[in-house]
This record gives sequence, C-alpha cells and structure tokens, in this order.
Amino acid sequence: MSLFNRRKPEKLGLTTNSSVSKPRSTDAPHGPLALELTRLLGPQKVLSAPAERLNYGYDAILVGKTPLCVVLAESTADVVTAVRVAKAAGVPIVGRGAASGLSGGAAPLVESLVISFTRMTRLDIFAERREARAQAGVITLAVSEAARPHGLVYPPDPASFRTSTIGGNLGENAGGPMCFKYGVSGDYVKGLQFVDVDGDVHELTRDAYDLAGLLIGSEGTLGFITEATLRLVTPPKFTRTLMSHFAEVGQAAEAVSRSIAAGAVPAKLEFMDRACTNAVEDYLNIGLPRGAEAVLLVDTDGEDLATVEEELALVEAACQQHGGSVRRAEGELESAALWRARRSISPALGRIRPQRMNEDIVVPRSALPEVVREIRALGEASGFHLVQFGHIGDGNLHPNILFDPRRESSEKVHELAYQVALVALRHGGVLSGEHGIGAMKRAFMRDAVDPVTLDALWAVKRALDPQERLNPGKVLPGDTDLPHGSAYARP
Amino acid sequence: MSLFNRRKPEKLGLTTNSSVSKPRSTDAPHGPLALELTRLLGPQKVLSAPAERLNYGYDAILVGKTPLCVVLAESTADVVTAVRVAKAAGVPIVGRGAASGLSGGAAPLVESLVISFTRMTRLDIFAERREARAQAGVITLAVSEAARPHGLVYPPDPASFRTSTIGGNLGENAGGPMCFKYGVSGDYVKGLQFVDVDGDVHELTRDAYDLAGLLIGSEGTLGFITEATLRLVTPPKFTRTLMSHFAEVGQAAEAVSRSIAAGAVPAKLEFMDRACTNAVEDYLNIGLPRGAEAVLLVDTDGEDLATVEEELALVEAACQQHGGSVRRAEGELESAALWRARRSISPALGRIRPQRMNEDIVVPRSALPEVVREIRALGEASGFHLVQFGHIGDGNLHPNILFDPRRESSEKVHELAYQVALVALRHGGVLSGEHGIGAMKRAFMRDAVDPVTLDALWAVKRALDPQERLNPGKVLPGDTDLPHGSAYARP
Repeated sequence: MSLFNRRKPEKLGLTTNSSVSKPRSTDAPHGPLALELTRLLGPQKVLSAPAERLNYGYDAILVGKTPLCVVLAESTADVVTAVRVAKAAGVPIVGRGAASGLSGGAAPLVESLVISFTRMTRLDIFAERREARAQAGVITLAVSEAARPHGLVYPPDPASFRTSTIGGNLGENAGGPMCFKYGVSGDYVKGLQFVDVDGDVHELTRDAYDLAGLLIGSEGTLGFITEATLRLVTPPKFTRTLMSHFAEVGQAAEAVSRSIAAGAVPAKLEFMDRACTNAVEDYLNIGLPRGAEAVLLVDTDGEDLATVEEELALVEAACQQHGGSVRRAEGELESAALWRARRSISPALGRIRPQRMNEDIVVPRSALPEVVREIRALGEASGFHLVQFGHIGDGNLHPNILFDPRRESSEKVHELAYQVALVALRHGGVLSGEHGIGAMKRAFMRDAVDPVTLDALWAVKRALDPQERLNPGKVLPGDTDLPHGSAYARP
Repeated sequence: MSLFNRRKPEKLGLTTNSSVSKPRSTDAPHGPLALELTRLLGPQKVLSAPAERLNYGYDAILVGKTPLCVVLAESTADVVTAVRVAKAAGVPIVGRGAASGLSGGAAPLVESLVISFTRMTRLDIFAERREARAQAGVITLAVSEAARPHGLVYPPDPASFRTSTIGGNLGENAGGPMCFKYGVSGDYVKGLQFVDVDGDVHELTRDAYDLAGLLIGSEGTLGFITEATLRLVTPPKFTRTLMSHFAEVGQAAEAVSRSIAAGAVPAKLEFMDRACTNAVEDYLNIGLPRGAEAVLLVDTDGEDLATVEEELALVEAACQQHGGSVRRAEGELESAALWRARRSISPALGRIRPQRMNEDIVVPRSALPEVVREIRALGEASGFHLVQFGHIGDGNLHPNILFDPRRESSEKVHELAYQVALVALRHGGVLSGEHGIGAMKRAFMRDAVDPVTLDALWAVKRALDPQERLNPGKVLPGDTDLPHGSAYARP
C-alpha cells in the first residue's frame, strides 16, 4: 500500500516551517554557492536572498548564524546535489527539519549551507510488514495518522510531534512521555537511507556495524538521514489515567519506584514541581493543587482492561502509601482534561518570560528528590525563575530556566544551566534524555564524558566527516570551541 | 542488591569452556609474549603451552589458527594489560566467550593473542532499577536465573544460552526464538564498558553517538566489551503453545502473515521444513508429521490469560484457513514436549553428518515460500544434505548444510553457502539475523553491501582500530582476503 502525504499541513491541523509556502523572491541568486545550486536544482528549491535566509539561522531555542544559502530539498537526489556543491565549495552543511528541537541542533553556528527537509514528505505504509517508510520531512504525527486506518501506530511522541519531522526526531533520537514503556525514536528504526559528507547514498539495515544506530542521535554531524523504515505497533486498546499530588518530591519519587517494583509499567509517568504546577494553574485555572510540591500524572495502557485497571490500582496504592492524594480520571474526557495540564506547560511558561532554556537531564530515580531540591536551590540563588517537570519514570527531568533576553544575560542563563547539568552528573546522571546535546550542552560534554571516550567519539566523527563540515559545533566539544549561539533568544 | 556468580557452572547445570577448569601446565611460558603476560598477570591467567592453546583456535563452526597465547582474564584490568602487551608486540587480538557462535567470530584467522572472558562472571542484579550489570563472561541463562527471584528475566534466548556468554551474545548481537516479540540482545543494553585497541577503558551510555550500539554486533573488531548494563523485564504470566503442519511451505508462511495481520504477536514462531522435521523425528520418535512440508511451532504469551488464548485462537484460525492441521498443547507438559522437537534440531542433525554449516539469512516473510523452494533445489543439486528451519516470524531462516569434512570438500560447502546467501539477497534479504557475519559470511558482504557503504564501514573500523589488529578477517571484506578458516571442521 502506498500513501503520499500530499494533503496540506493545515488540513492535518499541523503547522510547518513558514518559509516553505511563502512566495519566493524573484531576485537573482545571491553569491556563487546559490548560483551553482540554482543552476543544478532550479530557483524553486534555493533560497538566497537575506530576508529568506534569516529564519533558517535559528531554531526553537537558539539563534545561530544566518546561513549562506538554503536548499529546500524535495528528494534524496536534491540532497546529494546540495552536499556535492557544498563539498566543492568547502562550505559546512547543517540539516534542518521543523527546527522545533530544544538543544540548538538545527541552528548553524558558522556560515553554512542549510538543507531543509520539510518538503521531503513521502510516506508509505506497509501494513502487512508493520512498517512505514518515511522521508526525513514527514511530520511525526503523520506517521500514526496514516497507519491508524490499518490498526497501527508509531509510538514516539515528542512534545512537538504535530510539527517535528522524522528526520529531526532521529537526528536527536527524540523521546516523549511514551518513552518509559515504548522506547525512544531510534528503537523504531529498522533501516535508514543516509547521504554522507561526499554525497554518496547509503541504504543501511541494522546489521553488523550498526551505522544506522550511530547516525541516530548524531544531530547531522555524521551524515544526513533522508529516509527511514519505521516499525509500527498495534495501539493499546485501553488507557486509564490518574493524577496524584504530594507534600514532598521524595514521596512522589518513592511512589513511582514502588509502583514499578510492584509490577506496573505505566505508559506515561509525568512529574511537575510546585513552580510548574502553579505556572500551569495560572494559565488554565482548572484547580490544580497549588500547594503540592509534586504532581504525578500517570497513564496505564494495554490490551486487556482488567490488567490496565490492575496496573492503575498498583500505582494508586503506591501513591497513597507514600502520602499522595489520588484522583482517578472517570472516562476519556476527564483523562484528556488532566493531560491538558501537562500539555499546557510550554504555553504557560511562555507567559512568565519570553524565553526559556530547557534542560533534559536523566538521573537515577532514587536520586530525584535530592536532585530536584538542589536544582530548586540553584534557581532560587540565581534569581531566575526555574521550573521542573519531566518523565519521572525514566528519571528524565526538564529543569527550565525562564528569562527575558532583553534584560537578562544569556551568559548567566548558560552558567546556571551548567550548574544544573553538574548536579545531574554528580548524581550519576546524564546530560540528555531526549533533546540531544546540540550546541547548548556541548561544552558540558567535557564533564560528562571521559577524555579517552571523547577521543574515541572524535575518531568516529573524523572517520565520517574528516574536514568537520557537518553541523560544526554540535555534540562533541572541540579544541577551539565555537560559541554556543549568540543568545538563547529570538533575533 | 549484589550477587556474585561464584557457584561452579556445573551446579547451575551449565557447561563452560573446558580449558578454564583443566589443570595448568607447569612449563615455563612459551615465547616472549607469554613471558611478558605471565610476568604482569601471573601464571594462572596465561596459557602458552601448545596443548593448552590448541582448542582456542576454533569455535562451534570454524577451525582457525591456534593462538600464540591465551589470557584468561578475570577483570577489566587484566583485559587492559593483555591489550597493552599485544599492542606493544604488534600482535592481533581475538576476544572469546564460550565460542558457541555459528559464524566463526571467535576463531582466530591469523596468529593472535586470544583473550578469554569466561572467568569474568561477576553479576549484579538491581531489581528496583530493573537492571543487571554483567561482566562479559556471565553465561546468558545465569542472568535470568539470578533475576527470577526478583520477578524479572532477561529475554534474549539464543539456542546456546546455557553455555554462551553475554560478551559473545553482544559481540554477535545474538537473537533467539523470543526475538520476534522481545527483540535481540542489543535491545536490552543500557550501557557498556569496553576496552579499546590502546587498552583504554570506556564507560558508555546510549547517548549521542551511540558507540555502544556500534560495538554491539561488531564481533570484537572495534574493541572488547567487558561489562554491560542489561535491561530486565517481568516475565509473561501465561504461555500457550500450538503446533501446525502444512502440505506446502507457502501455506505456513501465509498462515503466519495472516496471524500477525489479525493482531497476534506470538512470543515465538518457529518453522521446520520436511527434511528438518524428519531428522528430528528420526532422533526423538515422537510422532512428528513426516509428510508435512512445513511445521510451525507457536507460543503466545502475556499478562492476561484471555488475551493469550485469544492470540493463540487467531493463530489457530489462520493456520486452519491456510490448510494447516493444528494441535494445541494441553498444559505445560505437552507444551514442553512440542518445544523439545525444536530444541532437538542440533543433536538430530549431528547424527546425520558430523559437521554442519549453519546459515542465518533473513528474508521478507512474503518471499519465504519461494526462498525455501530455491534453497531446497540448490541442496538437491549439490548432493549435500540440506535442512531448513528458523524464526519464521522475523523471516529468519537457518538453512543448514550437513557434511562430513573427512569425505566432503569444505570449498564445495562454502560455494553452496554462497549460493544460499545469494538467494536471500536476490529476494531483498540480508546475510545474518542473529549469528553475525564472522569469518563465514565475510566474503558474501561484497554482494550484500554497496561498495560506498563498505567504505564507510571501513572508515569507522579504521577510526577505532587503525592497524586492523582486532579480530582480523571478520565482518568486513578486505583488499587481501584472509582465508575463511582452514575447514568447517573439527581439527
């Protein structure tokens, strides 16, 4: 069965990168790179006027350098052409999906050619094989929308899944609330097509030397993922939801550990701290417990209703044993209302300060109470507004530093983010659960990864990109560190 | 909770590499390499007498070169010492677990230092985190045995799991019947410790640049996995079994496809062809259907008995719709009896010819009938006894060429194996599902992988092993091909 995702994004209720549909400049190409690309690809696929290039210089979190030129690739062949032209010109290349990433992965840090994948939206569903084949620009949610009529879904659910692309998700190995039970994006990849730094096309399965696995999460620094074969699964028949709130973060963390130890494997296990809960309540006014230090939001799901309810009962009992007040959602409407609180975190925080720096640490669940406490103290000492939430089942915490770039120093934001990262590392955690390292946490890698292991990662990087032309300044810290963007702010 | 696997393997009902427990030679170390290693590690950890080294020259399928020296490492520090001494001497190194692999991965092809991991058997279970930390020499089954008292298991179940080691399993990314539903060994790895070609020790999580994932399945050609953090899961509460037999292979393949399309996700889905069924029946005499062209053996499992039985009913209906006769196991004893047929394939084939060459192709399920037919025709034309079985849910087929190395030419066996591999590739398949490429299928890689992708794989290999001293002659075909072992035979 073949399905082309030709419907307009608007009809799907999805947003997409605004530049794709805006009228093109009629100017002649700017500069020799654009001239050559226009000659080979035609004017409809190349943006070179300054006004057109401007918004390809930043992503959801970071302002980088405005690119020299942008290619709006429509096929793998276009990507090959763009890569070869950039190679001949000695120009770095940055790949870009919907640019909704939260680590600065898609923002160029040096003058580069940007290859945008948002026009590569071909999507085929192979229901019998339980597979989808998606081009890099397919919007994440579109995979499940196309698969659902066949009784199948694609589980990875990053918060931005209505806008983010499969290529971007794989570049950052994106997660989402479903991660705890269902795994991250890379766990669903059966094969990849990628274009290397020389413009050669590779079809990879996940065999000996899992090069596909190496490319997943490498943020476009080793090559460009152009297509992926994705594993689809049958969606759970039943889902049940509860919310619980606690006087102490430690109680919530212990309730989670006890639930899991008792045999529950919730599909989603979300945590919000007091500051986060209050921000959402200010925004929605739906009666969230303002005095609670921790709110848990939990889904159990599965094939069998009795088992799903039994799992929810295990979670409920564990919450109550650790002092939590529990509210079970009666029916889908109430469940949706509870989840609306979680989904509203981003807009709620946006009302407090115009900009935020979103961390993505992962710590052992047992360390969560201490980690949350230490990070809150850092926030209070810094004077910044800091909120914490995340996928507590995985120990994946998103401390968010809220700030106003017009009045507050991005260096101080970065310093606080660094201190937060160090808390995670001190407690045996890691820097990123699902957002990637990008530009934002690149300097922190020296604290997270042993020098000999960094050398090994660099050896692999140089094997696939000897001249360091692919997304320079991302993931691996270098000898001469590039700036981590001009500011964590919109231009 | 910490647990040391100090019990003797015999007490666990497990077998292990015979050399570990045999009395050591009292001779002085043979040669300068052994002298230096003995000086640094002590005589109990170094084998250098010719008689001691002899059986480290072959594995379950391939006879290679007798190693120059063998180190019986007891710790990561011992591995580091061995790697550094080999580096200083410019000697290649081959890692070795239980040597039960079926692609020749553990058999040295040139004069090498062998590092045996069978003494590295430390195993810690962290029940709260649902994790195990295992040294490379821990026997696969021992992980589940240690985890079961905590209500947890480690699902990967390669046929040799009573003898194979975690290090070997990860080196080959081993599978097993449970693969279809539960995934292969690498899917359970949360982190790795590995020793690189310089003797540096790395602790890897599965973050940006998934070096851990690259090492898994790389057969010791990029470094040595010394420890792994493994994900544990709760075992299914209920399991149900059926056997079905068919007059045509195509009917069985269609029954499998229809079962899966109907929503069944069997835990195991095994296939035996007529020759295989007859070999097992000759051996066990338990009333297997000798006239059937295809026998399917199916387990469904899960948390909820009604769902497990519903899934089995879906499989049963699909089998019957495609002309299969179905026998449902009534109770655990009958289920065990049916699975005994599958588990007896190896000894049954061993009675026919003393040696076998075990392929491991994976093809789209829809291509299975044609693939099975073509391979059977190749076997008949060759004069060799050829049987086929495998994990049909994944399309993973094990055509086995049975032969007597005293009377039959190993070149002809290899040529037939090559023709079998070409059938798989012609039908859009791959060379290896769970055994690895090793030495046996290395030359076939040229047919399976595009030259530009082979170049990329070589670039990664050289980044981590510039002088090609790690398990030379495995996985990637080189400019100067090494022999693929002196014979597919015992010495």
